Amino acid sequence: MTTALLTDRYELTMLQAALADGTAHRRSVFEVFTRHLPPGRRYGVVAGTGRVLEAVEGFRFAPAELDWLAAQRVVDDATLDYLAQYRFTGSISGYAEGEVFFPGSPLLQVESTFAEAVLLETVVLSVLNHDSAVASAASRMTSAAGDRPCLEMGSRRAHEEAAVAAARAAVVAGFAGTSNLEAGRRYGLRTIGTAAHAFTLLHDDEEAAFASQVAAMGPGTTLLVDTYDVRRGVERAVRAAGTGLGAVRLDSGDLPSQARAVREQLDSLGATGTKIVVSSDLDEHAIAALAAAPVDSYGVGTSVVTGSGAPTCGMVYKLVAREDRSGAMQAVAKTSAAKSGHLGRKTSARRVVAGEAAEEVVVGGTDPAVLAWRPEPDMRPLHEVFVQDGRLVPGWTGADGVERATRRHADSCAELPVTALRLSADDPAIPTVRVTL
Amino acid sequence: MTTALLTDRYELTMLQAALADGTAHRRSVFEVFTRHLPPGRRYGVVAGTGRVLEAVEGFRFAPAELDWLAAQRVVDDATLDYLAQYRFTGSISGYAEGEVFFPGSPLLQVESTFAEAVLLETVVLSVLNHDSAVASAASRMTSAAGDRPCLEMGSRRAHEEAAVAAARAAVVAGFAGTSNLEAGRRYGLRTIGTAAHAFTLLHDDEEAAFASQVAAMGPGTTLLVDTYDVRRGVERAVRAAGTGLGAVRLDSGDLPSQARAVREQLDSLGATGTKIVVSSDLDEHAIAALAAAPVDSYGVGTSVVTGSGAPTCGMVYKLVAREDRSGAMQAVAKTSAAKSGHLGRKTSARRVVAGEAAEEVVVGGTDPAVLAWRPEPDMRPLHEVFVQDGRLVPGWTGADGVERATRRHADSCAELPVTALRLSADDPAIPTVRVTL
Repeated sequence: MTTALLTDRYELTMLQAALADGTAHRRSVFEVFTRHLPPGRRYGVVAGTGRVLEAVEGFRFAPAELDWLAAQRVVDDATLDYLAQYRFTGSISGYAEGEVFFPGSPLLQVESTFAEAVLLETVVLSVLNHDSAVASAASRMTSAAGDRPCLEMGSRRAHEEAAVAAARAAVVAGFAGTSNLEAGRRYGLRTIGTAAHAFTLLHDDEEAAFASQVAAMGPGTTLLVDTYDVRRGVERAVRAAGTGLGAVRLDSGDLPSQARAVREQLDSLGATGTKIVVSSDLDEHAIAALAAAPVDSYGVGTSVVTGSGAPTCGMVYKLVAREDRSGAMQAVAKTSAAKSGHLGRKTSARRVVAGEAAEEVVVGGTDPAVLAWRPEPDMRPLHEVFVQDGRLVPGWTGADGVERATRRHADSCAELPVTALRLSADDPAIPTVRVTL
Repeated sequence: MTTALLTDRYELTMLQAALADGTAHRRSVFEVFTRHLPPGRRYGVVAGTGRVLEAVEGFRFAPAELDWLAAQRVVDDATLDYLAQYRFTGSISGYAEGEVFFPGSPLLQVESTFAEAVLLETVVLSVLNHDSAVASAASRMTSAAGDRPCLEMGSRRAHEEAAVAAARAAVVAGFAGTSNLEAGRRYGLRTIGTAAHAFTLLHDDEEAAFASQVAAMGPGTTLLVDTYDVRRGVERAVRAAGTGLGAVRLDSGDLPSQARAVREQLDSLGATGTKIVVSSDLDEHAIAALAAAPVDSYGVGTSVVTGSGAPTCGMVYKLVAREDRSGAMQAVAKTSAAKSGHLGRKTSARRVVAGEAAEEVVVGGTDPAVLAWRPEPDMRPLHEVFVQDGRLVPGWTGADGVERATRRHADSCAELPVTALRLSADDPAIPTVRVTL
């Protein structure tokens, strides 16, 4: 499917006016950034960059789209002609997927004609705002979970396609797998699953359900033991699968005390290798509270797919520089933004002192000065090139892109000061220093 | 695209075990309901039913899906054979799309074999949880806005496909249009748009931008007047379009005082018919606070597409009854749910006294008794049939379904006690009375 109509109507009407007056072809730089993190968050995680690049590749107006736009009289014939030929021929650069970010970080830069770049606003923001919200929450969860794996099981609480993207974003932020099959297929993610209460209830009794699951899936399966009585459930689970039972899942009750009781019972039955998966409305705080409990992995649903209280990022897509009449690039901003004095095209780097992130350095100013700027020796550059003159740079999209983003997330988090990983509310983990050239 | 892999892995592994032990073909009733509304909400709005029915129609395992499942060894060959033939042949019924609901309302009922029904869990819940969260928030906004239209402009803050569904759900709950073009195309919704700050900034000055937009779109267009200085922006807008200017948009500042100043200025310039659209991070409370300000319509973004603090509903899909060995239907529940004593298949009706909703009556119990139950004369039945023996009942899907849902929402809200429409936190607007037969 084309992504071309995943677009606000005003992109097309602005295009029509700009084509008519000739400004549509002015070279322009749009930037994606957010002014604030969600209240109390210490960092954010960029996710969705690979999906943005795939969406730009698929941004084509085929006859079906053009016919509909014509029938609805959304734009005039000259604009339809332009759209029929639309291909993005500009450049896209910015933060690698998986990288952490702070308020004002220039996350994505789209440089092209106004016409080519303005049309991408909605789909670029939709993808980045959603996926980054999920990854930012997921990162706090994997950090709270430490070495124990987090498993994404939230598809049912998100729009059916958002669920696929959410699984992908959770894996970027360190989740070990997802229950979502389409996410597994599309992005090469590991898929996981246990069983629902419905499966136990379908059978005449719990023994029959467990016997059936073990017969079908082998003793390494995960049995859900809280349909009737957890103590009897665990007893029956070990009887059905033997002491080689893979895991039991707890989906209700007071998890810390429940997990301790189940661990003792499993050990006393000789099932010392059987793991305990918990999955009852977990968020980062509940995961942290289970750190001392004998739990082996966390199934996380609602809170990861909804960004744990912050279901979207406040990312915006702003025109920051464009050609003037003479063909020179000029910084632009609405009056309220211009007050900051930090205008124009941006680039950025992270100052890293003794292996620890110390500052986010965001450089703005006149085009030639920003383009000529080079990071100092103790700075790690953050600006990567994804599309150059309309050609996709390999390695950022598809399953490869997800793997690379997962590594980048791990590396970027490892560099943060430890206080960044605390869950309590606080200011951004490192300050953002604005340099104007 | 098929919807078959928008599914949690455990649906398929449970199916494999149930096929092997013979229970897969037991007649089963699954129900969708929610135990609670979001804190303080007085009612919820069902949305997405039409999309659920479309997803069930599209639920097919084609060779591409079967090959992937086989390669990943998700399930065995016998299960793949079953999936290859999968067609839903059962029945689906429940609350009409657009209807209001309360905790425990039996929103959707899927009756079929266990095998056919269990596979639909994830996609059914994904659609209903997302779309109903948006519609429930949107309904509070249209109620707060009274006769002034609300316009959905939140695509950029939601996953790109969730944005399309969110636009649809907002319109079900009374929004007058959406900025999302794909939603317009797919569901026949009215699309709307103004211009972004980027359009003004692209031009050498505001005069040139306004002149260009009026030349392209006519004087009936909506000009965005807050890029530089609102007072001068309004002056230039009227100069560019004349006193027939359609509208001005305000996207920042203190909206009530700003709207009053702009209204006076427009009137003093003779543009007495020019409307004022506001669009700065509005939610239901901000809309209510603007009731006394001279505003003509509300552009709503983030808060409507993210459910205004409740981005998902807590809807679950539970097996409530299934055949036993003898072929008789038997109510089932996990122990914690069984304590309520309100088990088995449900049906429901709303008691309406003197035109005002008074009680949600939810009837549960043994299958024959619930099936034989008829609403009392002062009750409006809520249980509608959408799919009968695998055949879709016409009128619930596509653009027709959205129109019908919009009407249902309006009628259903009109019947609520006026206190239901207050925005302050409170209990559900009417009590739910559980009848056990």
